[in-house]
Amino acid sequence: MNAFHSQLAAASAAAESLVCVGLDPEVERFPAHLRARPNAILAFNRAIIDATADLVCAYKPQIAHYAAVGAEDQLQDTLRYIRERAPGVPIILDAKRGDIGSTAEKYAREAFERYGADAVTINPYLGRDSAEPFLQYADKGIVILCRTSNAGSGEFQNLQVGDRKLYQIVAERVAGEWNSRGNCLLVVGATYPGELADIRARTGEMTFLVPGVGAQGGDVDEAVRNGRAKQGAGLVINSSRGILYAGSGEDFAAAARRATLDLRAAITQALRRP
Amino acid sequence: MNAFHSQLAAASAAAESLVCVGLDPEVERFPAHLRARPNAILAFNRAIIDATADLVCAYKPQIAHYAAVGAEDQLQDTLRYIRERAPGVPIILDAKRGDIGSTAEKYAREAFERYGADAVTINPYLGRDSAEPFLQYADKGIVILCRTSNAGSGEFQNLQVGDRKLYQIVAERVAGEWNSRGNCLLVVGATYPGELADIRARTGEMTFLVPGVGAQGGDVDEAVRNGRAKQGAGLVINSSRGILYAGSGEDFAAAARRATLDLRAAITQALRRP
Repeated sequence: MNAFHSQLAAASAAAESLVCVGLDPEVERFPAHLRARPNAILAFNRAIIDATADLVCAYKPQIAHYAAVGAEDQLQDTLRYIRERAPGVPIILDAKRGDIGSTAEKYAREAFERYGADAVTINPYLGRDSAEPFLQYADKGIVILCRTSNAGSGEFQNLQVGDRKLYQIVAERVAGEWNSRGNCLLVVGATYPGELADIRARTGEMTFLVPGVGAQGGDVDEAVRNGRAKQGAGLVINSSRGILYAGSGEDFAAAARRATLDLRAAITQALRRP
Repeated sequence: MNAFHSQLAAASAAAESLVCVGLDPEVERFPAHLRARPNAILAFNRAIIDATADLVCAYKPQIAHYAAVGAEDQLQDTLRYIRERAPGVPIILDAKRGDIGSTAEKYAREAFERYGADAVTINPYLGRDSAEPFLQYADKGIVILCRTSNAGSGEFQNLQVGDRKLYQIVAERVAGEWNSRGNCLLVVGATYPGELADIRARTGEMTFLVPGVGAQGGDVDEAVRNGRAKQGAGLVINSSRGILYAGSGEDFAAAARRATLDLRAAITQALRRP
């Protein structure tokens, strides 16, 4: 098990949780008392982290939400705060990068050296050589898009290539080749439970990052039943908006905690089913 | 012709050029006298822009080179400097973004509102709904990866889907559907001249952003012969490292100018061939 997977397993065991909280701050959705504050994003994230630190196996800040408003400093401070408040909980930087090798090196440096993330999401369209600068970070988690949670993801991902679909080829290629250092994970949306089962069958014990529960409507029970691995659960189940915006008043953090508890409980229940 | 295409055509006519200079600053490759300067990236870019402003149809800053070192401010200042020094020359932000719709909105905001770019590169793997928040900017250029210039790009892009390859399907889908507002372009690497001809045949008069000449070894003559459109040239030919690092001494900007002149001349010569 590589360092990222060990860290993830330890955090998951400590919190008895497969829940990953996505930190996708949108100031316009913040409670009114926070909106006008300087560094509102950091204040919001700190409240969410305080409310959920004992309940999660990972945090996943989505970088576009910071980049859109020039809030790189608040992203950096959010990561620092996670290290302080939730030591041992791994941080997955959701960036979905993908570029030719010389540029991919810079993106890897952004994720792992500038921000010090433990894992990063990447896009496979450019092929393995574009992933290699990430894959060389043997201690990190490299989370490759396979079957994404959005409604239109089948346009290319479901194209039929001989006897397999494109997403199946991506899954097999990653499991069989890209994962030679044991540091790969796959993104598979909870909104496609059939594909979750299919990709599980093709990839053995790989860990899946599963977005799409909560605001996107994926069913937790089905996702767990179809996506779980034979040994460990092999799942990191992300909710962003469903947790962050569970409440809209001054008690938003308490509402976020309740939503996280509910999701954790739903997953636990699903895991107990035979 | 949408606003971006008009701007590109005007800049191209004014400079009699299809050359796009990629602004991919790497401090460790800068001339020694610049390396230790504060805001070395901005100083370097300003010198390159000063030396090439009358010779280009576009500039293409590649965002990873700024993000890796926390230089968003210098990226912003570089864009401002282009507006001042090369008014009318469009700016393509090379970011290769791709995410589900709600997040893609943030990335579009980053490119067009935060940075004020005229065009942005995006990745098609997630399908049209992930591109839609970009496509809605009808006045901008949305540059979609099709056949990328890297050695391993065929791993997925060349997969055979029925009677077509994946990149051919992307090309046709973009030309026939995604381009309903007339704001799409395609990325096709000069390193794959056969594919340039093939994609040209499938997409009519679409404009291609062509990386891969210069440091990546693509042949200008072949790229022009195979990629040109029937009416306008339909090509924006990018060189980054081949221009930026043409010289390594204090005269690096003069060397960059010579490399740009050479590339412009090679393209002009290729366009004159019958």
